[in-house]
Amino acid sequence: MTSFGDLGERQTVKMIRELLQKEDSPDSMDDDAALIPIGNEILVISTDNVTFERHRPEGMSPERFGWMSAAVNFSDIASMGARPVGFLSALSVPEDMDVTEIAEIVSGIDQCAEFCGTHVIGGDTKPGHGSVSGTAIGVMEGRTPMRRNGARIGDVIAVTGPLGGPAAGYHSMKESLGLEDAEFCLTTPIPRVNEGIALSASGIVSSCIDLSDGLSTALNTLCESSKKGCIIEWDLLPKHEDTVTVGEMLDIPLESLVMDFGGEYELLFTFDRNDTDALNELDIQFHIIGIITDGNDVVLRRDEKYRKVTDGTY
Amino acid sequence: MTSFGDLGERQTVKMIRELLQKEDSPDSMDDDAALIPIGNEILVISTDNVTFERHRPEGMSPERFGWMSAAVNFSDIASMGARPVGFLSALSVPEDMDVTEIAEIVSGIDQCAEFCGTHVIGGDTKPGHGSVSGTAIGVMEGRTPMRRNGARIGDVIAVTGPLGGPAAGYHSMKESLGLEDAEFCLTTPIPRVNEGIALSASGIVSSCIDLSDGLSTALNTLCESSKKGCIIEWDLLPKHEDTVTVGEMLDIPLESLVMDFGGEYELLFTFDRNDTDALNELDIQFHIIGIITDGNDVVLRRDEKYRKVTDGTY
Repeated sequence: MTSFGDLGERQTVKMIRELLQKEDSPDSMDDDAALIPIGNEILVISTDNVTFERHRPEGMSPERFGWMSAAVNFSDIASMGARPVGFLSALSVPEDMDVTEIAEIVSGIDQCAEFCGTHVIGGDTKPGHGSVSGTAIGVMEGRTPMRRNGARIGDVIAVTGPLGGPAAGYHSMKESLGLEDAEFCLTTPIPRVNEGIALSASGIVSSCIDLSDGLSTALNTLCESSKKGCIIEWDLLPKHEDTVTVGEMLDIPLESLVMDFGGEYELLFTFDRNDTDALNELDIQFHIIGIITDGNDVVLRRDEKYRKVTDGTY
Repeated sequence: MTSFGDLGERQTVKMIRELLQKEDSPDSMDDDAALIPIGNEILVISTDNVTFERHRPEGMSPERFGWMSAAVNFSDIASMGARPVGFLSALSVPEDMDVTEIAEIVSGIDQCAEFCGTHVIGGDTKPGHGSVSGTAIGVMEGRTPMRRNGARIGDVIAVTGPLGGPAAGYHSMKESLGLEDAEFCLTTPIPRVNEGIALSASGIVSSCIDLSDGLSTALNTLCESSKKGCIIEWDLLPKHEDTVTVGEMLDIPLESLVMDFGGEYELLFTFDRNDTDALNELDIQFHIIGIITDGNDVVLRRDEKYRKVTDGTY
């Protein structure tokens, strides 16, 4: 037999997608969130399961875990340009868990939903090993959903903010380094809802994905969906300032902190370089980090050397 | 501290609802599924987490578990009268699980979605203890959603089919009794999508709920939401024929099999008795089992004796 561990997460997801593919399947199966046309509106829905065991770093409060479990899903619909209209959470809770902690998780979910301009509108609570399955619902309001598969050769690649903050925060919490800003990045990821709406409204963006699985994985996923390659310039990558500190203190390669960790929620998107001025007018922060090529590989250029970047370790 | 086990599932859900209640919260928080108005359409969404450990009886194949995990959610939106338009599944999978089994679970989910007239349109797969978090999405198409809180004094109470089949099936599988029909009820629950649509389209129904948590719990939930009581007539309850066999063979009280087990997906609904003829014209099966009263209690009348029915053991 082949186990899930043997096949790996990404290949298993591929297998499932192929299994579910039908002639009349929507072609959005490939994206973070699913699209459903409802009358004149397009609905955008994402669901994700985060577990206490795997996604709650030591020292993260129940409230922050709740926030994070909601942010994962809001980020997925933000990457398509949707405005959130509701959130559902299915909690699986160990029998011996303090109900105060449950209340704190729910409060964190609620705060994140409010931050994203919406509410928790339903859900479910059952005994289990400890996890939150969130479902975020959004609407496109006439904008065209940004997909993963639209990157064109020659498009530039940009991200909405600095990278590696959550990685630095994770190590800071684990080793008690006290890097508060980085720790905040990890425990309170900000879904880029406004950025997603502005980017999709602009009509400029050819493809978009969030960085919740890390830059390496996001680039590989976007390039694979778009059937393109890319070159990323190391010097152009905006790095969270604490990544350097953590890298030096703990002797962790900076590249790994910036590219492979995940848990961050900036958007990565592509557009025609001739539209840079129009993008500047959107009043959102962005940093150009590379260019789409006609190959299949994600390539990092650093100090005049080229390295093929595979999926992150996350 | 008070643990989740101490407080219990139902009280915890109540606590969470109170925590999330805001002035502008939708009043549908009380129902199985959440309502979102989108343009002229009303969206109905339900999410539920089922675990291998708790919801997969010994002998249930991965495929049947997949079907069941989807049916739970389709049943929730069916009870409001929605037509399904999509399904998402977030799988949590143990590392050592055979990928063939994962494929079978997904196939079961897919079959159930197709049976309900829709598709799996997205999801997520992550390592974990083994669970499926499903999200079913439906639309009302102009019909008014059936809620739990609309039962009126004097309304009659009806169910769409025989009760206790899944309970009998569970014991049959456990004790190898070979009661195929009952086992099929357990492993292939049929969400009453067409019945829900017909009932909501009729405009006759004052309240509705599915029986996935069992008759006792459903009656208590519906009466509590409607701030009413009810009297159920034991002799009127349609009992799956295998319940009697199982009860006698294993010395289990028939009342417990018929009322407390859950895992069944008939709809329970209330309506004005003067509308019985109109309901007969809908071409759906139903059995009147009792009447709504002005008390707070769910009461079972059997052999001229009255017994207060509390929440099921499920």
